[in-house]
Amino acid sequence: MPNITVELLAGRSVEQRRAFARAVTDHAVEILGARPQDVRMVFNEITPDIVANGGVLASEDPSRAAVVAALDKS
Amino acid sequence: MPNITVELLAGRSVEQRRAFARAVTDHAVEILGARPQDVRMVFNEITPDIVANGGVLASEDPSRAAVVAALDKS
Amino acid sequence: MPNITVELLAGRSVEQRRAFARAVTDHAVEILGARPQDVRMVFNEITPDIVANGGVLASEDPSRAAVVAALDKS
Amino acid sequence: MPNITVELLAGRSVEQRRAFARAVTDHAVEILGARPQDVRMVFNEITPDIVANGGVLASEDPSRAAVVAALDKS
Amino acid sequence: MPNITVELLAGRSVEQRRAFARAVTDHAVEILGARPQDVRMVFNEITPDIVANGGVLASEDPSRAAVVAALDKS
Amino acid sequence: MPNITVELLAGRSVEQRRAFARAVTDHAVEILGARPQDVRMVFNEITPDIVANGGVLASEDPSRAAVVAALDKS
Repeated sequence: MPNITVELLAGRSVEQRRAFARAVTDHAVEILGARPQDVRMVFNEITPDIVANGGVLASEDPSRAAVVAALDKS
Repeated sequence: MPNITVELLAGRSVEQRRAFARAVTDHAVEILGARPQDVRMVFNEITPDIVANGGVLASEDPSRAAVVAALDKS
Repeated sequence: MPNITVELLAGRSVEQRRAFARAVTDHAVEILGARPQDVRMVFNEITPDIVANGGVLASEDPSRAAVVAALDKS
Repeated sequence: MPNITVELLAGRSVEQRRAFARAVTDHAVEILGARPQDVRMVFNEITPDIVANGGVLASEDPSRAAVVAALDKS
Repeated sequence: MPNITVELLAGRSVEQRRAFARAVTDHAVEILGARPQDVRMVFNEITPDIVANGGVLASEDPSRAAVVAALDKS
Repeated sequence: MPNITVELLAGRSVEQRRAFARAVTDHAVEILGARPQDVRMVFNEITPDIVANGGVLASEDPSRAAVVAALDKS
């Protein structure tokens, strides 16, 4: 431990996942005092049609359209 | 918050997810006193071959055959 | 299923949890076509000092002070 | 309950999932005193490119190459 | 991995948790082909007043009274 | 999103949680392209007697005694 789960919209590249895992692991070691080999991270990728905020699916939410569109392009 | 995760068999339509998210969000506001914008819901869709009840996979469970068949048709 | 997890700040009463569980179960039956006996709900209660939004712990977040204070009183 | 979630690399067969669900359910009854019908298990299958140990994605981790290769073949 | 989460009613002893963790780990090695050191298990203990089945809190559910009472005694 | 869950042994201070939440949120913005206000983090603190590695509870695991002892002191 720490055992870290990152729920996020699909669309990030393997380079982004790699860099984020490294950076967060470094902070877990420095700030939380974890041993590097004990830090585990799982990315749980989801799509905009299965997540809702304020009762509105992200795929139908004007306030999140820019976020969703940016990921679709990548 | 509340941050709500709904684990369910795949096969529901976007209309069902939309209506359920709205209805549950309304109840979170009315009953739990949440702010609408703080209510988050994620649907985690699974298939019958990765869930077991009483040690029997749902895809091989006679007592759940009707449930599984109904979703396959939708 | 559905197997529903509700992560929320501690402070709601048993009456609130009971009413919310009933209302959401009814909607799971009506909207999602679930069998009542298959609907499961777990409340995962957390405190404001272990959750952060935008990198700020809820216990130190002015924009959430009213929400936290309301729960402390109940 | 118990409600058991098994996060594991994809690649196991339905026979493996079936046998594991049965064996664990039997132990939940014998050791934990659960009722068989209350034991629920969900397999959450993930791929090596979305999990990291020590800041290294499993898909790029020499120390896990044998594990990943074995699952790819099955 | 496997990374196993066991959500269950509080009340089991450390002996029960120890025996269950050992038995399940052995099966993960034998049936799933896992390396022993990769098998992780976390028990997530909950109380009957925060879980509902069919819209009824377990603490108020006559059909689960025997289960709850047995754990209270242990 | 990202919605980040950090499962870790209890014993860290609020200063550690605050600093970790800030650092990870910054990386989510820089590396993953998230909006700061969308980054959510929950710490799920557990004790050594409810987690097992390789079938051995952390509270009884000689190879983790130093980690557990360090947290007990803090």
